[in-house]
Amino acid sequence: MSTRDLTFRQAQDRVDAWISQFQEGYFPPLVQVARLVEELGELARALSHETGVKKPKPGEEVHSTREELGDILFVLTCLANAQGIDMADAFQETLQKFDRRDTSRWTLKEPAHE
Amino acid sequence: MSTRDLTFRQAQDRVDAWISQFQEGYFPPLVQVARLVEELGELARALSHETGVKKPKPGEEVHSTREELGDILFVLTCLANAQGIDMADAFQETLQKFDRRDTSRWTLKEPAHE
Amino acid sequence: MSTRDLTFRQAQDRVDAWISQFQEGYFPPLVQVARLVEELGELARALSHETGVKKPKPGEEVHSTREELGDILFVLTCLANAQGIDMADAFQETLQKFDRRDTSRWTLKEPAHE
Amino acid sequence: MSTRDLTFRQAQDRVDAWISQFQEGYFPPLVQVARLVEELGELARALSHETGVKKPKPGEEVHSTREELGDILFVLTCLANAQGIDMADAFQETLQKFDRRDTSRWTLKEPAHE
Repeated sequence: MSTRDLTFRQAQDRVDAWISQFQEGYFPPLVQVARLVEELGELARALSHETGVKKPKPGEEVHSTREELGDILFVLTCLANAQGIDMADAFQETLQKFDRRDTSRWTLKEPAHE
Repeated sequence: MSTRDLTFRQAQDRVDAWISQFQEGYFPPLVQVARLVEELGELARALSHETGVKKPKPGEEVHSTREELGDILFVLTCLANAQGIDMADAFQETLQKFDRRDTSRWTLKEPAHE
Repeated sequence: MSTRDLTFRQAQDRVDAWISQFQEGYFPPLVQVARLVEELGELARALSHETGVKKPKPGEEVHSTREELGDILFVLTCLANAQGIDMADAFQETLQKFDRRDTSRWTLKEPAHE
Repeated sequence: MSTRDLTFRQAQDRVDAWISQFQEGYFPPLVQVARLVEELGELARALSHETGVKKPKPGEEVHSTREELGDILFVLTCLANAQGIDMADAFQETLQKFDRRDTSRWTLKEPAHE
């Protein structure tokens, strides 16, 4: 199967298969939050470097935003699995909430004139 | 289409369609990091409440971990779109990296004996 | 005593006196990390609003950066107390580390010519 | 002067003297938030390691909670300076707020019986 068709459900199943190999299993919820903070910190560093606002320290290993985004997605999937949350459902509910709540916060583009 | 089959690609396309309605477009990268921090803060609060380690303040609105996870996923998808990152690719590269690097950090379950 | 002369040591002692009133005492370390994330999320939101990069949601309560910075400082002080860390010492060690390590990362201002 | 007597005001002045050496000056507000996230991520990692909930990756450099706490304090002081916030004032206002608001959230210790 091509990556292009990867569903959230498949991603959750793959993470579960990976974690299930190990006796340790999923981390407790607040350890997962701590991991998300770590990963978000690395994403912030990668973006700061890539957008040029901050220079790496001498000798500092530089990761890409893409890699850090993949890592956050992995940890988020672990958290979803451990808490029994369907990511696709959660995502769609958020989209619906924003549609209800936030449409008036932003400026709709004008329709093109004939 | 059922939610069950939602692919990362479709999620990215829906977010792009939603954002593209508005003149403001995507936030700049560091504003998106700031949003991710906000959302992660709300996820941390929701998990702290749900797991019972912390009581809500009097009158404090309590959101579910599921809702906050959906929100983080939305902001992460915005960031991926704005940076031109394919989430499914990034996710699979992370899985491969962990497979190479971390398998020895944890304790493999013993195979069942015959 | 005027606020102007508040030392880190006094701040740590006051937080300890406040927490010591309650049976619950200090939160466990990872709960404190979760609280720091929450507070940092609120600081990020306040700064985004004050610097004009993001509009508050309709009805959203807006706190000041100053208030959120005070809150982070409080939670950080709790963490220091719970872990037996002297904040003034930790701060001075960081200053010394940056002095050794980072002076060459930035551009020294030219001395004024005679 | 001994470290024991370091005031918040002196800490802010020292950071300002350090930053003022360089042409770059203070980072813009959202870059400082990104730095805080990075530092908080490192603090989360240090605490996870010290409290034993997570093993370091092979070859991973391990920093102490104390060092990471000093780093956060430094970045927080930069942010306070750049935004013109007096840390001691902000801290005391937070203490007063918690005194008003949160005293009833927790269980007061019983006074000792005669």
